[in-house]
Parts: sequence; C-alpha cells; structure tokens
Amino acid sequence: MASLLIRNGRVITADSDSVCDILVEGETIVAIGKNLPVQADEIIDATGKLVMPGGIDPHVHLDMPFMGTFSSDTHETGTRAALHGGTTTVIDFVLQKQGHSLREALTEWQGRATGTAVGDYSFHMAVTDFNPSTREEIKDMVAEGITSFKTFMAYKGALMIDDAQMVGLMQEVKKHGGLVTAHATNGDMIDTLIAQHRAAGKLTPRYHYLSQPEVTEAEASGRFADIANYTGVNAYIVHLTCEGALNQVRRATERNQRVFVETCIQYLLLDASLYGDDFEGAKWVMSPPLREKKDQATLWAGINQGLVQVVGTDHCPFMLEQKKMGADDFSKIPNGHPAIEHRMELLFSEGVMKGRISPQKFVEVTSTNAAKIFGMFPRKGTISIGADADLILIDPRKKHTITAETHHMNCDYSGYEGWELTGKIDTVLLRGQVAVDAGETRVSKGYGRFIRRGRVQF
Amino acid sequence: MASLLIRNGRVITADSDSVCDILVEGETIVAIGKNLPVQADEIIDATGKLVMPGGIDPHVHLDMPFMGTFSSDTHETGTRAALHGGTTTVIDFVLQKQGHSLREALTEWQGRATGTAVGDYSFHMAVTDFNPSTREEIKDMVAEGITSFKTFMAYKGALMIDDAQMVGLMQEVKKHGGLVTAHATNGDMIDTLIAQHRAAGKLTPRYHYLSQPEVTEAEASGRFADIANYTGVNAYIVHLTCEGALNQVRRATERNQRVFVETCIQYLLLDASLYGDDFEGAKWVMSPPLREKKDQATLWAGINQGLVQVVGTDHCPFMLEQKKMGADDFSKIPNGHPAIEHRMELLFSEGVMKGRISPQKFVEVTSTNAAKIFGMFPRKGTISIGADADLILIDPRKKHTITAETHHMNCDYSGYEGWELTGKIDTVLLRGQVAVDAGETRVSKGYGRFIRRGRVQF
Amino acid sequence: MASLLIRNGRVITADSDSVCDILVEGETIVAIGKNLPVQADEIIDATGKLVMPGGIDPHVHLDMPFMGTFSSDTHETGTRAALHGGTTTVIDFVLQKQGHSLREALTEWQGRATGTAVGDYSFHMAVTDFNPSTREEIKDMVAEGITSFKTFMAYKGALMIDDAQMVGLMQEVKKHGGLVTAHATNGDMIDTLIAQHRAAGKLTPRYHYLSQPEVTEAEASGRFADIANYTGVNAYIVHLTCEGALNQVRRATERNQRVFVETCIQYLLLDASLYGDDFEGAKWVMSPPLREKKDQATLWAGINQGLVQVVGTDHCPFMLEQKKMGADDFSKIPNGHPAIEHRMELLFSEGVMKGRISPQKFVEVTSTNAAKIFGMFPRKGTISIGADADLILIDPRKKHTITAETHHMNCDYSGYEGWELTGKIDTVLLRGQVAVDAGETRVSKGYGRFIRRGRVQF
Amino acid sequence: MASLLIRNGRVITADSDSVCDILVEGETIVAIGKNLPVQADEIIDATGKLVMPGGIDPHVHLDMPFMGTFSSDTHETGTRAALHGGTTTVIDFVLQKQGHSLREALTEWQGRATGTAVGDYSFHMAVTDFNPSTREEIKDMVAEGITSFKTFMAYKGALMIDDAQMVGLMQEVKKHGGLVTAHATNGDMIDTLIAQHRAAGKLTPRYHYLSQPEVTEAEASGRFADIANYTGVNAYIVHLTCEGALNQVRRATERNQRVFVETCIQYLLLDASLYGDDFEGAKWVMSPPLREKKDQATLWAGINQGLVQVVGTDHCPFMLEQKKMGADDFSKIPNGHPAIEHRMELLFSEGVMKGRISPQKFVEVTSTNAAKIFGMFPRKGTISIGADADLILIDPRKKHTITAETHHMNCDYSGYEGWELTGKIDTVLLRGQVAVDAGETRVSKGYGRFIRRGRVQF
Repeated sequence: MASLLIRNGRVITADSDSVCDILVEGETIVAIGKNLPVQADEIIDATGKLVMPGGIDPHVHLDMPFMGTFSSDTHETGTRAALHGGTTTVIDFVLQKQGHSLREALTEWQGRATGTAVGDYSFHMAVTDFNPSTREEIKDMVAEGITSFKTFMAYKGALMIDDAQMVGLMQEVKKHGGLVTAHATNGDMIDTLIAQHRAAGKLTPRYHYLSQPEVTEAEASGRFADIANYTGVNAYIVHLTCEGALNQVRRATERNQRVFVETCIQYLLLDASLYGDDFEGAKWVMSPPLREKKDQATLWAGINQGLVQVVGTDHCPFMLEQKKMGADDFSKIPNGHPAIEHRMELLFSEGVMKGRISPQKFVEVTSTNAAKIFGMFPRKGTISIGADADLILIDPRKKHTITAETHHMNCDYSGYEGWELTGKIDTVLLRGQVAVDAGETRVSKGYGRFIRRGRVQF
Repeated sequence: MASLLIRNGRVITADSDSVCDILVEGETIVAIGKNLPVQADEIIDATGKLVMPGGIDPHVHLDMPFMGTFSSDTHETGTRAALHGGTTTVIDFVLQKQGHSLREALTEWQGRATGTAVGDYSFHMAVTDFNPSTREEIKDMVAEGITSFKTFMAYKGALMIDDAQMVGLMQEVKKHGGLVTAHATNGDMIDTLIAQHRAAGKLTPRYHYLSQPEVTEAEASGRFADIANYTGVNAYIVHLTCEGALNQVRRATERNQRVFVETCIQYLLLDASLYGDDFEGAKWVMSPPLREKKDQATLWAGINQGLVQVVGTDHCPFMLEQKKMGADDFSKIPNGHPAIEHRMELLFSEGVMKGRISPQKFVEVTSTNAAKIFGMFPRKGTISIGADADLILIDPRKKHTITAETHHMNCDYSGYEGWELTGKIDTVLLRGQVAVDAGETRVSKGYGRFIRRGRVQF
Repeated sequence: MASLLIRNGRVITADSDSVCDILVEGETIVAIGKNLPVQADEIIDATGKLVMPGGIDPHVHLDMPFMGTFSSDTHETGTRAALHGGTTTVIDFVLQKQGHSLREALTEWQGRATGTAVGDYSFHMAVTDFNPSTREEIKDMVAEGITSFKTFMAYKGALMIDDAQMVGLMQEVKKHGGLVTAHATNGDMIDTLIAQHRAAGKLTPRYHYLSQPEVTEAEASGRFADIANYTGVNAYIVHLTCEGALNQVRRATERNQRVFVETCIQYLLLDASLYGDDFEGAKWVMSPPLREKKDQATLWAGINQGLVQVVGTDHCPFMLEQKKMGADDFSKIPNGHPAIEHRMELLFSEGVMKGRISPQKFVEVTSTNAAKIFGMFPRKGTISIGADADLILIDPRKKHTITAETHHMNCDYSGYEGWELTGKIDTVLLRGQVAVDAGETRVSKGYGRFIRRGRVQF
Repeated sequence: MASLLIRNGRVITADSDSVCDILVEGETIVAIGKNLPVQADEIIDATGKLVMPGGIDPHVHLDMPFMGTFSSDTHETGTRAALHGGTTTVIDFVLQKQGHSLREALTEWQGRATGTAVGDYSFHMAVTDFNPSTREEIKDMVAEGITSFKTFMAYKGALMIDDAQMVGLMQEVKKHGGLVTAHATNGDMIDTLIAQHRAAGKLTPRYHYLSQPEVTEAEASGRFADIANYTGVNAYIVHLTCEGALNQVRRATERNQRVFVETCIQYLLLDASLYGDDFEGAKWVMSPPLREKKDQATLWAGINQGLVQVVGTDHCPFMLEQKKMGADDFSKIPNGHPAIEHRMELLFSEGVMKGRISPQKFVEVTSTNAAKIFGMFPRKGTISIGADADLILIDPRKKHTITAETHHMNCDYSGYEGWELTGKIDTVLLRGQVAVDAGETRVSKGYGRFIRRGRVQF
C-alpha cells in the first residue's frame, strides 16, 4: 500500500489541536504523532497550515430533475467542485416519484452517480409518497446503508407528504433505527401566497421571498418537531433559516426532545436585501429564501449553543439561462444556487477568522457532527486511526477572492462574486489520495465511492 | 525521557473511536497509531479495553473549612481517590473570606494543596466579597491561570454576594476574558424556609430538602442568566439539578445567549426519596438537595441536547461523625457528600452501558467539555499529540460493587453503597505515569501539579 | 306593551352585584333600580335569588347530519332544553357541503331552524370548501349577520380544509371584519392513528380517545394561531381541552397576538378515566375526547387568567341506539354528547359554589364574553337598559340531581347521571317572556328568533 | 336625600352600552332606565355624551416624603386634579419607615389625608421592613380595610425588602386574604449602574434611563412571580413598562399562575426618545423610566389580551425647582411626574378614539378591574344599583389641549404639554355630588372619604 506523510501541520479536530504528523497508508490514517519516525512514498509539508477533517456536506442536489430541468452540476462536476472547497463527502437526495417505488428512484440515482462521482457520496431517500408498499421498502433502504429519510412539507403534488404520511413514515423509520429529516415549510400557505402574488402581477424574484415568510417555516418546524416527539423518531430539520424556526426547536427542548438542526452557509452570511426590484435576485431564489440580519444572529448563536449542529449548502445550481425560465414569473425560476464549493472557506473566513466560532466548532459543524448524525462516524468526520484519510490543508492567512470565472461548479454565476476570504484550502485528500492540490484536481471521475451509513451516534 | 506504549486499546474520545496504540514520552502523548512500529520502556496491553481521556472534575471541595469543620478529604486523599476513579484533574474552590482579599485565600489554599495533591488540580476563585479592591485582583488571578470566578447566590453572611456585586464582578471578569460561575439558588428564600422549619421543630434531614424547593434554584438560575446576558460575560451554572432551572437556560437560548451548565452525577442517579424520616438522609444533605425523577429525565435529556455540558460531583465529604453535628438540627449538618471517586464509573455504567448516552458524549461531559470551558484544552480533556498523557483504561464488562469499605475517599460511608456497576477503570495514567493500576496507587503525594488555565475555547 | 317586574333579586353581571328590581317592557329591559316605583303586568319575586344574564352557548349542533345520522336534538328540543338550563341563545353551525355553496347550506339550516326554535339562535358558517366562489359569499354572509366562520382542521374529505384554504379564508374574513374559528386538531395524524387502531383490532371507545392524543390538538392550535397571526384576522379556538393547546395560545401572547379560547363544560369536569374497557365510554365519544386531570387544572386557570373567555358545550347528542352504530368500531360512533341543558348549573355548582371562579367570571364565560366576541353585545350577554330581557333566576342553595329521566334533551342518557348540584335555575326569561318556570316550558316552538350578529367588540 | 337625574346619556360600563337615564339619591345610584318616569332635585342632560364609571387610579403618591422633599400634590390638590380628569378614587401609598411600625406610618398618612382629600382615596401599605413585629400588624391592616401590601424590590436602604422578607410577607398576607404588589425592578443592579454612571461623570437625566435597562425590570418581575407562585398569594405588579417584564407574566401563565399587571398611561404613550442630551428629560425621570416603541406595542397588546388589567399613573409630581436638585446628578432628581389628571382623557383619546381598545376595555382598565382587584367592587368601578354614584360625562368629540397653564395639578410643567386630545370629561360626580363641571370644582377640601377595601374579587 502506498503511504503518505503529512508533516508538521497544525492538526485540528473537534477535540484536538496540535502540531504533528499524520501517516496515511492506502486509504486510511494509520498514525498521528510528533515527528513520526517513518518513511513514506509521498511527503507533504504542512508547516504553517491547518490540517482538518475533510468536509461533509449532507445537503446537495446533483443532476436533479426539478421544475422541468436538471440542476447543473452532475455528480462529477459537483463532487469535483466540492473537493476543491474541501468537502470530501456529500449526501445527495434521491427523490421518489409519487406513484413509484423508492427502489425505482434509487436505481435511477445510482445510475447517474455510480462511476461518475469524483468525491465520496451517499444518499438520503426522499419519501414523497408514503403508502403501504413504500413502508415495506424502508427496511431494505436501511439495510443498504440509506438510513436517513427526507420529507418535504412543501411542494404539494410533487414532493410533499401530508401529516398522515409523516406519522406513518416516522413510526416505520424509528422501528429500523433511522432518521427522518424535513424540508419544514408550510407548502399550503406558500402555494396560496404564490398564487396571490401571481394573480396580482407581482412576478419578480422578490416575490419568491415574500411568498415564504418566516411563519411558513416556523409553523412547519414546530409541527415536524411535534410529530417527531410523538413518534419518538430521530429528527433533523434541513436548511433552517430563521429565528422563528429555531425557537420551535428551542421550545421543544423543554419537553426533553432533541431535534437536530442544519443551517446552510448562505443563511449565515447573506440576507434578503439581495432581493431587489429586478431579476438579479433570481440568483438567490431558493427555498427557504434568504432572511434578515436578526436571523443570521440567531443562527450563529444556535451554533455556539449546540442547537445547530450542521452547516450544509443545499447546493442546487442552475445556469442563468435556466433561471430565466422564470424571467416573467418568479414561480418558474428553478430553486437553488451554487454553494458546494465555498461552504468551508466561507465559514472559515467569516466564522473562525472573525472570532464567531472556535476552530473546533468549525470542524464539528462542517464535518464531525454530520458524520455522527448520519451514521458515518468514525470512518468519516474526524482525524483518527482507521478513519478514511479525508483531510484538508488550510493556509489560514492566504487571501483569495470568489468568482464564477475560477470556480469549479458548473454554474455561470456565483452567489458570492467578489467576496474576499481569508484562509485558502490548498490541498485536499480523499481516502489517502491527494484529490486537489494547488488548484489542480488530482483524482478522476469515478474515484468517488458510495458510503453506506448506519445509525445516529451523537 | 521514559516512554510507555499502550497497545491495542479501543481509543475513544469525543470525536474518535478506533483500536490502536498510544505512545507516551515523558508526560505527553507523542504518537497514536495502528501497530505503531516503536519500542517503549513500558508496555501496557489494552486489548479489550477502552482507552479514554482522564476525567476532569471541575467541582470539588478538598480540605475546605465549612460550617465549623473541614471537608474530610485533603488534597492528598481527595485527588488520590479521584485517580482511582479515573479523574486525573480536579478543580477545587478557593473561598475568599468576606473582608479579606482573594490573594489571602489563594495563599491559604496553595498552602494546603501544594506538595500535597496526588492528582492534578486547579483552582476556581470564589468571590464572596466583591468590592473595589477585589476588583483590582481579578486581573492578577487571570494572569496566574485562575480564570474562573465562582459566585454564591446563597449562604448570606458567609459566601453570598448580592446582584450589585454580581454585575460588577461579571463586568470585570468579562474585561479579562474569564468565566463567572454560580451556585444559583435564592439564599434569602432558603434562609426563610430554614428558619420556618426550625421554628416549627421540623429538624430532620428531610427538612434540608424541603427548605430548598425547585423554585429557589429556578429563580436564581434565571436571574444569573439575566445578569450574565446583560454583561455579556461567559457564564456557567454549577450543579444544576432540576427542570425549572434548566428551563431557564433553555429559554435564555431564545435571546441568543449561551449559558454553560454542569450537573453532578448524583442528580442524574439519586432522588429525594432518600430523604426519609430518620437521620439516614444526612448522607445526602447537600445543596441543592436531590430532586425528583422528572428532574433526572430533564438532566439526561439536557446532556443529549448539548445544553448540559459537564457532569461533575460537588465532592465535599464529611464523616458521619461530622454529619452528626446536625443530629438535632438539619441546618447544622455539613453540606456535601463523597463522590469524587465514582463519578466516571457511575456514568459509564448507568449512562453508556444502559444506552442513555454515547461513548463520545461520555468523554465530552466527563472531560473534554470541562477542558474547553475552563481553558485547559487541548492540554487536557482529549487524547491527542502533545496533550498530557492522562488516560484511563476501562474494562467495559467487568462488574464491581461500590462500598465504603473499599473506596479511597476519606469518608466512612458511600452514597452508593452496594450499587453494582458494569465497567471498571483498571488503569489510570497521569502525565505519562501509571497513577493507578489494579487498585494500587502508583504515584505519590505531591505528584499532582497545579494547572494554569486560559480562556474558554468551546 | 306588556310589562314585567322582577323584584328584589341579587342581580349579578360581569361588572355588578346588587339587590334590586328589573323592569321589562315588551322584550327589553327598561329599568333597573332599588324598589322601582312602578307597576307591572306581572311581578316575579326574586328575593333570595340571583338574577343573571341568560346564557349564550356558542357551540351547539342541532339536527345536524353527521356520520350518517342526525344529532338527536332538533332546533326545537335543543333550544327548549337549553332554556331549561338557563341558556337563552345558542349559536348553531351551518355546514357547507364540499362542492356546494354556503348559501345552499344556509338555506338548508334555515329550513330546519326557522319556526322551530324555542330559544334564540344564530349561525356560524362552517366553511368546508374554500374556493373562489366561496370567497365571493363571505361578504354576503357577514351582511346577513353571520360574522363567524368555522373551520375544521380535521375530518378530511368531509369537513377539513387545508392550510392553503385557511390562509385565503382568513384574509377574506378579515377584510369584512369577521372572525375565524377552528376545530383545531390535526386530522391527518388522527386519521392515521384511527386506521392503525382499527387495523390492530383495537375497536372499543377507548381507542377513540387514544386516536386523538394531546399533540394532535396542541399542534393544530399552534398552527391555527400562526396562520391567524400572519393574516391578522380575529381568531377563536373552539372546544380547547388541554394544556398543550392552551400553551400555544399563551406563547402566542408573546408576539402580541390575542387568540380567543372556548373550552366546554365537560373538559372542566370530566376526564378520560371514563373511557374504560367496555362500550360505556361511547357516551363520551366526542372530538376532542376528554383529557386528564392536569388539563382540567389548566382550563380552570385559563379562565381566571382571562385566556379562556368562553365555556360552551359542543352539544351534539346521539341516542344510545345511534351510538351503537359503532358498537364494533369506535370510528363509527357518532361523535358528541348531550350538554346544552346543564352547562350553566354545572359551572355554577362546580365553579362558583366551590370557589373556583367568581360570580362575575361565571357571567363572563357563560354569557357576556360570547356576546362580545360574536357580535351580539350589548343586546345579549348583559343586564342593561335596552338589552334583551334574557334573564335567569338561580336559587343558589337549592340542590338537585342530574338524570336523563328528567332532562329535556332528546337523548336517552346523561353524561352526568346522578351528579348532585348546588344551585338551581328556577326561572328563565327570554326577550321578556317567562320561558321556563319551575320546570315548565312557557314559550312555544317558533318563539326563538334568529339573531343577526356584528363585529367582535371585546 | 337629594336626588339627581342624568338624562339620556350613552351609559357605558365594562358590560353595557345603552342610552338611558341614571337616578342618584344621596350618594348612590338607585335606578337606571329608559326615560325614567321620575322627578329629581337636579337634572343633568347628558344627551350626546358618554357616561362612564368614575376612574380609579390605584397608583398615586400624594404629599409623599421622598428623596429629601415631598411630592408637590397634597391629598387636596392631587385628588382635586384627579377629579378634573375623571378619576374619583385614588389609592395612595403609605410608606413604612424602616425600623418603625406600619401603624406609625399609617397614622402619619392619615394625618395628611384626613379632612384634606377632595376625592375618595384609599391606602396601600408599603412594607419596607418586614420583621416579626411587622408580621403581627398585617392582620390589623386587613381588618381596617388596607388589604394590599406594596413591596419595593429596589431602593435598597430606604424601601427595598429582600427575598427573605418577601417570602414571609407573602405568606402572612395570603393567610389574611390580601394582595401583594411589587415595584419589580432589581435594585442592586440599578444601584451598580447608577454608581458606574456617576463615577464616569455621566450625570444627565438620560443616565437615569440608562441605569434601569429592561433586564432590571424583567428579572425582578420574574422573581416576584416565582416567589408569589411558591407562596400562592395574590400578586400584582405595579407600573410594568416593557416586553421583557410582561413576558415573565405570560410565561408564568404556563404554570397556571395569574399575576395581575398594572401599567401606567405614560408607558403606553411616551418613549425614551424624550431623554435627550440636556436637562429637559428630568421631567420624565421616573422609575421605571420610559421605554421603547416595541414596549408600547406590548402593553397595548397586553391590555387586549387581558394580561394587563389596570392603567394607572404612578402620579408623583415635583416642581421643576425640585427636579433641579438633580441638575448636576441624575440620581438626585426626584423620581416621578404629574399624571393623575390626564390618565383618562389620554387613554380615551389615544385608545378608544383611535380604535386600539373598545369602550368597555377602557372602563375595565381605568376603573372596574382596579375595583375588583383591590376589593372595592361593586361599590366602586361600575354603574350599578347601590354603587357609589361616581360618574363621568364625556363629550367624545370635543377637542382640547393639555397644558400646565390650565391643569389642576400642583406642578409647573406637564409631561404632555401641547397634546391635543379628542374627548373631554365635562362633568364628574363623586358619590352623587357634582364634583367638577365645566372646569369648575364643585366639592370642597375634605369631601373625599377613605375607602375601606376587602378581598380580590376578579
């Protein structure tokens, strides 16, 4: 087996911080130590750099059919871009088609991902049609390492399940030790507001934002927590954006419930002032939409309170041409934006370097917690013996600027165009291979592997 | 430097779980790896055992003058007993005497601890008289590594400060980057209830419990959080016991505040039914008293919610003869009980082995979180390169029974007499030395070192 | 015009308490005074009695088609029984049939009630199918004095509207100054639990109760409040039963929202221990079901906190023979029970005479508040000049026993069989006529009049 | 006995609204009716006017020794000014002197009030030194009709009691069926902030405001509610000003507690922007200080939620010359401002005429609720037979302007100088006498009578 030695980096995990060496053999870490007295086939000098676990982004949509088109990053381009930003593993969403089986959807997604992904990936199963035959499939999915089940409380007629299905799904998933996640917004309310805005000729992207007010998310988050508490299932809210929603989770703690919470990097850093009077705001048409400054404060606090465990992206890019499908009607703008590549550098620069979170918290929310919650720990999410050698080397003082001209996502704009960041991820290892170095991709299409997952261990 | 190799244990930290070796040189860990190709002066075979970070108990009272007597464990006997239970570092409380300086108290405590402690120790400074000259001393204390300042909201006339002093202290401590902790119970209310019980001839230990109802703790916890929020200081509530108090912390999250919470092992495992009609209950006369089953449920949930970060002991033992000072009057029973030795085995057996918490959570609440909150990280609280080699080896299936006959605390009873536990801490290392092995103490009086502490890094 | 003088009663309203006379001319009160120097066609000596406003029960279902049968009290028998219990005005629910217009339903209900009712009545309009053409009808209904619009969040496929319809309805009703009320339980969750119990062969009445756990009501109450807050409409929750639901209303106060709350007499006095192992529990099969003792405590507190403004009945009686439709399947038991007659005497005996509420509060929750909220004030709900002379005379010390043998409801059982009450309503006046006296009905079928209602004035 | 007839007014109480006549004989109302067929010694034509119960202001400080001076309104000038503004009864505060008895203080206050007051008055007893001998006096005070006991949680060394005294006082008051009220702000915190501002040379009136941030009130309100809940006493918070404090009361509802809340007119209408850079702000130096716009919204909502039952004034006027005692130091500015005269016209104009509250709610919060809570009902607080004929006649459309030039308070400035109001109180009756008419006082010094009070009846 090939060996590789990373010398003299400042190794930081959720519970450590020390200057030392890391020895990798084949795909895994085999030793960590001070001046390890070993030889290796390859040596990387990490002096002056931070070495951290590769990132896990548990919320990405690659090559996803949606609103009559496909998200513009394939499993190849998406995971490659992820690697450039230090994210070594992603969890993509398989979407059951209503009236069809989970298996059918899984087969379709496997078809697109297998042999294509550059970085490691796993699947959540989005259950959009829970019925007796779907129920039968849950057990099998868990057995195949797909242990998290996504629900949509919005997008009626396409993805949304009702509360009757939610109860049943939660009961079944609990039986098999899995986790239920939710896009927690009130689809019915949103549909009404969209219809009203359209009827009133209010058609610019800003009305996408105004069709999803905070209450639509707060209400659904509370409802999801209520039903989860009743069933006793492990529960996780994806892309939580606002104070109202986090307060539902906070209040649920009073009945001794734990609800895991993910926010996304954009909700920490961007706000609704980006939705102006013209079509430019289409770049950030996503669901939920960007919120207010007060909500940013809530989310940063939530991270430090331990109540927001994960920072993902909800990466779901569309080309500007695709966005223009909604040029005359915000409701036809494909929802989503490119983010998979910059999550970690953004959070490092804005979070760690600006003193909002500690380096340990950074590792927790970008990697360790997702590994624990989604059943990949301790293989992923940490730097420890036997773990996959998924590592990133950050030059903490190096400044760089985000621009669509140089990013690796298959998207012709960036949501952060021109942002100057402090801290550059120079080198990324995935299972012992240098995947990215100095801007060059060093692994190929198909290198990414499907990761079977187990139970929550938090 | 002497080297020591721990072979083949299952090493578990807050963010890892792998079977590997640990190499220690002198006092610190220098390598961790799979089959490390090294020699060592001493080798410990840890096959089949769990290897975890040595415990940190941030709440102990050794050789403490209190209620006309001294707690019965000295820094020698107390830290030795701690080591036997896997706790390698304790934080003891220096108590300022009202009308006197912090320095005076520190000197007194140093006099008792220096050269005496067997295990490592640090000091919190209990500020019982905050005034302009005390204010001047805060900076020096921080500079000397005493970065946490304890307040008592009870024990008026002896230890208690009022809210005016609390505001001032918090402002000063914040200025120097320290942490303020609180014994958060409403001393005035308690004093009234004590007086009423005494006046009514209600004098058994049960009335100690009835003099400190939940509201006295809930109220003060809320007040402490309120003032801390106003001042912006890092805040930590010691020995939180009940639902009412934790709900104050939970509600404080809604204003984006983070308040650290410590509970103690007894509040997770014992309840007020131990206070019967006779004097037996004196064994558990402590403040706050034991609570109800509902409160235990709250505390276990709080741990898994991430809102209770630390499990300590409030170890403050008194001999039965000392307890008898209050044979005729509960208010004269010295408050406290022996616990320093069994915290970790109790929590392992009742928490990890019974599936209430994960092994990672166990490490967090017994060691890592205390290290981070109290500014000892990454030197303490983890197993990483350069960290102190404070390690415990647990035989996870070995059963044993707690009894005062065999425990190492200088106390002639146990609060857990006859409890059978699963999981025995066989071997304990402190800074690279085998401190305890197979029931034998292997380090001597004076081995323990004072640990200077820095800022919260959580 | 005929005149009637009530002499020397202790007149109690929400804001008065004095021994005096009341002079009625025709249908209205024209004078109140101490020893009024007047003559009258008829004189009633009320010495030793309490004189209070006639009760308003804003929640009754008369002659209602439901679950394949009709509730067993017609507008004649139901309002007559109401009068015997001191309730002079009821508000019945018109149920839109899905796919049909509000007008159609109103015409049908008018057909059954007009010329039939003995006591006064009004209608809520239950909107079960909100669509563009329903929207058009709202304005007309308000113009015709039907200003409150009931929604069902349960009974999918029959009565339930979804949140999309809820938003739209609320917006429209707000525009016209009306009020939206809700049966706030999560129908989808309940349907799932019913189906599960049936599938498991759990078919006794007790499973009706177990199919509607507290969370189903708490969740929906929160959701209703959320949407109401967003739209700004006046909102009212009918038959609230439990702590979880009232806590949603309490928490809504923190965002400066006011949500009106009605509970029903049975939820204050009965609990789920009545659901035993046999079919007897069918007598109390209603939705929501009876709850726990803790919930009773919450509701009594809610009344005194001013957060529960109304005590109604949800009167919806079925004969035991009708109940037997569900002998083999709880889900086929017609929901509802007889209560219209005893609400006031029960609340007087258990509330006022036992010191739980003041006489003024009694008047508020049985009459005045409903009049204010539902737009009948000051014509109804009080004893004042120009108001309808709807009056009750209570002998506060007279004991009597409830039994189906003597009650006036068309139902062959009582939910309170054998209860002994203190305080008997001896005489009842409706619009100046003695409607009931000494157990005899003194007004005829058709005396009852439809009451047009206006805006909330609270 | 002299008789007086008020013809044809629109009589509005908390539960009525009708155009009718009111007949008064001697001091009390003897008849209310439509075109009452009676003669009277005096007739007042109230056509086009509103007739409402005379106001009760339960929070005034007349001729009070404070901060080295006396509030500038005596019982004569204060109650006369009150009458001009429609307030017929006030409750003044007797302040126990620490180290002295309640009786001593009562005698002193009686000395100042008896024979002096123009309007009716009662006394709260402010317990500033609760000790065994004070305890003995509680029962007597209740027997003498002083059933409410005020506590100060601020002004240490002068008025403040600690929580030990609070518990004891509450227990004793509960035993005798009384009510405990609180000035709920954290005196210790405030004292610290005052000292800090003074030490920093921050001496303008604005620093009075900055020394009493919202947390000082929210904290103490929660603490007061906590202790009251523990003791079970009837509790009432005086002059509540802010969202944080009301939220404490709202949250207390979740444990089924009822806490009565009074706000004052200034907190509904004025805000802290009045505290500028110069000494002008001294006019509004009161405790608590004026707050923010968000707090006004909270208080209006609280009224409509039924959680704020009373609107008082905390009338405590000082001449500008007296205010200047603090020209160089805000902490020496006598706290308080003139308000007793304009409470009702302000609330009518800003509340009723602007549609924020209903006329019934206006009566409740200015009169009826105070009568019920403070044990004066049904003698005071309503228009009913046998009640004191305390009546006001409002011309609802008449506009007038507030100015110190014309007001009747003995104070050389107004807090509302130049405010134009809609709705003028033209005529005021107190116990059957025309006390004020067309701006003229028609009763004399000494007409006011002490009102003995009983238990809470709400």
